[in-house]
Amino acid sequence: MKIASILKSPFTAKFMAAWPVLALIACLSIGSAQAADQGSRNHADDPLSAWNDGPAKQAIMAFVKETTTPGSPTFVPPAERIATFDQDGTLWVEHPMYSQVVYCLERVPAVVKAKPELAQEEPFKTVLSGDREAIAKLPMDDLIKILAATLTGMDVDEFKAEAEKWLATVKNARWDRPYTDLTYLPMKEVLEYLRANDYKTYIVTGGGQDFVRVYSESVYGIPPEQVVGTAGETKYGYRKDGTPFLTKEPKLLLDNNNAGKPEGIHLMIGRRPHAAFGNSTGDREMLEYTKAGDGARLSMLLLHDDAEREYAYGPAQGLPDTKVGTFTQALYDEAQKQGWIVISMKTDWKQIFAFDE
Amino acid sequence: MKIASILKSPFTAKFMAAWPVLALIACLSIGSAQAADQGSRNHADDPLSAWNDGPAKQAIMAFVKETTTPGSPTFVPPAERIATFDQDGTLWVEHPMYSQVVYCLERVPAVVKAKPELAQEEPFKTVLSGDREAIAKLPMDDLIKILAATLTGMDVDEFKAEAEKWLATVKNARWDRPYTDLTYLPMKEVLEYLRANDYKTYIVTGGGQDFVRVYSESVYGIPPEQVVGTAGETKYGYRKDGTPFLTKEPKLLLDNNNAGKPEGIHLMIGRRPHAAFGNSTGDREMLEYTKAGDGARLSMLLLHDDAEREYAYGPAQGLPDTKVGTFTQALYDEAQKQGWIVISMKTDWKQIFAFDE
Repeated sequence: MKIASILKSPFTAKFMAAWPVLALIACLSIGSAQAADQGSRNHADDPLSAWNDGPAKQAIMAFVKETTTPGSPTFVPPAERIATFDQDGTLWVEHPMYSQVVYCLERVPAVVKAKPELAQEEPFKTVLSGDREAIAKLPMDDLIKILAATLTGMDVDEFKAEAEKWLATVKNARWDRPYTDLTYLPMKEVLEYLRANDYKTYIVTGGGQDFVRVYSESVYGIPPEQVVGTAGETKYGYRKDGTPFLTKEPKLLLDNNNAGKPEGIHLMIGRRPHAAFGNSTGDREMLEYTKAGDGARLSMLLLHDDAEREYAYGPAQGLPDTKVGTFTQALYDEAQKQGWIVISMKTDWKQIFAFDE
Repeated sequence: MKIASILKSPFTAKFMAAWPVLALIACLSIGSAQAADQGSRNHADDPLSAWNDGPAKQAIMAFVKETTTPGSPTFVPPAERIATFDQDGTLWVEHPMYSQVVYCLERVPAVVKAKPELAQEEPFKTVLSGDREAIAKLPMDDLIKILAATLTGMDVDEFKAEAEKWLATVKNARWDRPYTDLTYLPMKEVLEYLRANDYKTYIVTGGGQDFVRVYSESVYGIPPEQVVGTAGETKYGYRKDGTPFLTKEPKLLLDNNNAGKPEGIHLMIGRRPHAAFGNSTGDREMLEYTKAGDGARLSMLLLHDDAEREYAYGPAQGLPDTKVGTFTQALYDEAQKQGWIVISMKTDWKQIFAFDE
């Protein structure tokens, strides 16, 4: 397996179990952290003003009304109001590549600077060459070395500082903007609308928990403790001066994809969500588990069908499956069968990004 | 190793790693869930009215003041205010036995009822006999069988329902009250006082996460998602009718004792606490990690030195180490050295239980 295919492919749970280090970054995207509060432009009379009127918007409004109106047969006490959101492809752009792979490749020069002997070793030598074609051909073992070198082995605080620094400088090529500008305004409106109705909003991502936590609060208004993601172990130890610190270990603890999502939700939250939002086969179990609860439950699936304003991809679009945010025909059929609401980016969203004005 | 010693001994991290099933219940205590709001009797002018004036009470008040007063050099923004509490021996009585071991033994009849063939098999036969001496002599392998049979293999919702049922009926022998009546009023005041000052309060327990979550909200006002504990894996699957559910697996995921406490805090919260409360060697690393943060940090250690109103135990008392809530001389010395505040139950607490009036 070559990096070329890895870059386009979310790792399956099975694959991740076999390749723990890779799993630490599976399906990740990151961006810069300056884009806070872009979702706070709701019209006072319409908390979902970036949505077109239609069944998706109506389903969200109806769900909130029936779960928060006292006396409603499906009223949910405030303490039990939990809503979970996938991140990549659900809260922000994931196509054509999960951003943390980019982060890992771009972190290589700093890693080599700290350990100069790596400059002449593969795969670091190839990555440093900047030869994209050669990089894409690197075999799996080499990618594992890159991921291990860039994502583990350091103090958790160092990792956070490094990620913050990267987030502050990198820009997405198509839009020439920080990745965090590429969050979906309609989804940020949903986050705010739910929170205004006493829902506790969580990110439940296949991406790296430590990574997403770096910017979740500034970008989505979601504190670190409400981010559930793929996570590696940490190890408690001491510096020479005796002060304690935690090191990120290259050992997978939580694979937060597919069945791992409801399992991660149980571990980290301990309650079944009343609402869940996703966009790919990696979210299937979370949507299913949420919808299977009693009372009113809302499961929504975002279809990327807007090639002009964002992207259109996946077999449900009659397009080749790009392996990023896989939205298969089977998933679409299951949504119909289980009563999940499909959101059409093209039809349901009046505006996609905050900067689209 | 016999059950007699297990019953009196917290399992070390090393031991638990070797005996994953045991670890699922290590150091647990449970009680019944009716005792909510017993801590809400604070005097309006003194949020810590069950405390005597002294260095412990003063340290808590000073910490809150310096971290919440705008303009204070050690002011902490509300979003970052995290306080963590060990449970057994810190929030409620742990002596002479962690209660979840009792739960497991008392669950045996129900397990045998569901699987009658076990009635003639050891160790179930011995447990059913009610012969306490024989039960205490059961070897480790037998205890593992009991724990596996009573704590894993069922739907997470079934487990919750069973624990709730047990909590509603069991009473502590010394006080003839539900275990949840045996929570410490002064500590409940601290929980409320911190929350009133925008601190998010967490339980960080060596006990079973799923177990403590059953009653954390009603007893301590702490929602399930703010309980970090020792946890086993769960497995997502389907019933015959196709509905999904999670099964508790006999496989250790998080050993939340000793170094596992700061590691669990990183995983589940992602921020270093500003305040931490414990009572034993199992809390040492959490107290150390908390105190090592910058700015104002409060680490407190509860000494059980009140044989009359509760218990006095541990070498720091000049008493034999009972292995429950181990408070060693070395731990006491470390508290002095690292600036942790020791709370004397005898001296610092005006009242121990809400019912002591």
